[in-house]
Amino acid sequence: MRLLCNLQQADTDMCSQYCISLADVKKAHSNIEDLVHITPILTSSILNQLAGRKLFFKCELFQKTGSFKALASKDKPVEQSLISRSFPCVTIRGALNAIQGLTFSPSDGKKPKAVVTHSSGNHGQALSYAAKLKGIPAYIVVPRTAPSCKKSAIQGYGATIIDCEPSDESRTTVAARIVKQTEGTMVHPNQCPAVMAGQGTIALEVLEQVPAVDALVVPVGGGGMISGIAVTVKALRPEVKVYAAEPCNADDCFQSKLKGELTPNPSPPVTIADGVKSSIGPNTWPIIRDLVDEVFTVTEDEIKHATQLVWERMKLLIEPTAAVGVAAVLGERFRKVVPAAQAICVVLSGGNVDLTSLRWLKQPEGEEAQRPQN
Amino acid sequence: MRLLCNLQQADTDMCSQYCISLADVKKAHSNIEDLVHITPILTSSILNQLAGRKLFFKCELFQKTGSFKALASKDKPVEQSLISRSFPCVTIRGALNAIQGLTFSPSDGKKPKAVVTHSSGNHGQALSYAAKLKGIPAYIVVPRTAPSCKKSAIQGYGATIIDCEPSDESRTTVAARIVKQTEGTMVHPNQCPAVMAGQGTIALEVLEQVPAVDALVVPVGGGGMISGIAVTVKALRPEVKVYAAEPCNADDCFQSKLKGELTPNPSPPVTIADGVKSSIGPNTWPIIRDLVDEVFTVTEDEIKHATQLVWERMKLLIEPTAAVGVAAVLGERFRKVVPAAQAICVVLSGGNVDLTSLRWLKQPEGEEAQRPQN
Repeated sequence: MRLLCNLQQADTDMCSQYCISLADVKKAHSNIEDLVHITPILTSSILNQLAGRKLFFKCELFQKTGSFKALASKDKPVEQSLISRSFPCVTIRGALNAIQGLTFSPSDGKKPKAVVTHSSGNHGQALSYAAKLKGIPAYIVVPRTAPSCKKSAIQGYGATIIDCEPSDESRTTVAARIVKQTEGTMVHPNQCPAVMAGQGTIALEVLEQVPAVDALVVPVGGGGMISGIAVTVKALRPEVKVYAAEPCNADDCFQSKLKGELTPNPSPPVTIADGVKSSIGPNTWPIIRDLVDEVFTVTEDEIKHATQLVWERMKLLIEPTAAVGVAAVLGERFRKVVPAAQAICVVLSGGNVDLTSLRWLKQPEGEEAQRPQN
Repeated sequence: MRLLCNLQQADTDMCSQYCISLADVKKAHSNIEDLVHITPILTSSILNQLAGRKLFFKCELFQKTGSFKALASKDKPVEQSLISRSFPCVTIRGALNAIQGLTFSPSDGKKPKAVVTHSSGNHGQALSYAAKLKGIPAYIVVPRTAPSCKKSAIQGYGATIIDCEPSDESRTTVAARIVKQTEGTMVHPNQCPAVMAGQGTIALEVLEQVPAVDALVVPVGGGGMISGIAVTVKALRPEVKVYAAEPCNADDCFQSKLKGELTPNPSPPVTIADGVKSSIGPNTWPIIRDLVDEVFTVTEDEIKHATQLVWERMKLLIEPTAAVGVAAVLGERFRKVVPAAQAICVVLSGGNVDLTSLRWLKQPEGEEAQRPQN
């Protein structure tokens, strides 16, 4: 099986080797450019010093969120409708491109009857949002153990939640059943070519924003983002390196490259970087095998340290998943493998952090009375 | 008493009305431009919607921190020397300009014997750092009740801590004694003209970065920052409004404007916005009286809500003090007083947040195992 979803494939001349090509990414760019932000690049002299090189942070955590004015109604004022929804991260590029591709499919010109995916996280929310924009029903298969806040977020976009057991097998089986029942289209979180191409648009921006870039560092879960980025970079600037970063606890990409064959994680990984728990798959593996120059793995402690460093030093509220790339460039092996003078772009993929545990936000008034004046 | 510190005064023609003029701010700019960042402006469509206008956030929380490579030594590697120090905020502009002004004083060309201030917060650290850069001894008067981490940060720059009682009177008396003993120069955290002029350089940047700006919103404690900004804005673009924002619990600026006379906070204010607890003073009051168009006060709940909003929606780790301006533009009174279409620049003054209370950073590995995959 080459394609896990029945989206229109790119022209076969363009994708003779892989399921997406630069042309798909450029098409994705024109599909979504009015709907997403060109996210800024930020730098930090402290992080540069710690890494011993010049770092450029591609701030996808500033990506447009799923909240938008049109979602407010007479019964639901703008503020209320905005507060409950948020997924500022790279997934929106992929979801929007998938939906745009379906809607404007030249093959039949008809809207699909429904879209289906399995993801309780960013992709589930992003797809629900993108589907709502185009008036397409969305069915999201979610493990019954998922937190209710994630389910609410998905339902907030009008998508239908379908419960499954918390196992890969159940997710896949249930999703297949829903696709059949609804005559819908499966949009896989990371193996769908349209998702990969949408996320590849990040690379088009980086190559314009940082012309002197020597390498990009990208966190890898299912590999959708790094595949889109690698295809783009190697087509436009083959001398620029593409490095993968993943948790030691979810090192299927590293193992696959080592063995030369697709080697999924043997069991569900335990990592704080919950956006990269998925294994790479049949569509992303060939691209990763051929076009990703190196894989760097990082420990849980390194991920936590990097997250805290970016919060404290850059004042950016990245999620731990986004810190995986930061941890990689600060690691010993990166220092040894990658020439010191290189200019490295690290993709900060998202900022979905649960802030409710921050103590002072819940502190009753008056407790601050003991603090000395500035 | 017009000037609270014995820094060189600006040319009297230029400052016939106030203790600083545009010329001082331009001088400050050339003094410090090699030492500080031109901080970026960020926007947020969600915040725009909530405010009902176009907002531009001047990200002083990205200002260069006090950490720098030269502080590392053979016994103290770079990483270690960097990790313990940080004050990314606007105060560095003022402290650096004060020190530069002292060092290059054309009156005698000699370095001062020492600098003295009373501040356990950002200014204390910023002045220690700036003094160390120029090899000038710094004495920082700190209430004995101040947290030891703040004292350590100051000592980390090689400054000497002088304990005082936690009262305004004790701070002032002890500082005066140390000035006499050391034959040093007092650099007041907000009434020192060089500090005010240094912070005014923010306005030079904003007017270049957002040419269409209609108003700036600035948090007010002692009023150093807003004074520097107001003098600059009204000299260059008199039609642009300058609005002050302060906590209801520390509303001396509002009361002073209401009564037409300097009216300090009657007792030490209790507010989560600990960077704006100080009252405005004799140097900042005339500027605020004449050049600040309006003062908006905000409740503690509004400050907390605005902080959380910026964290969640903009992914920027501002400190509560920096949220005071955000809370103001989201408030009812701002909506009524300020025309809806106006483009407003809100200064995000700093990002000194204690992150140690964030639960997941301390969570033992494995606890995340229950989270569903993305």
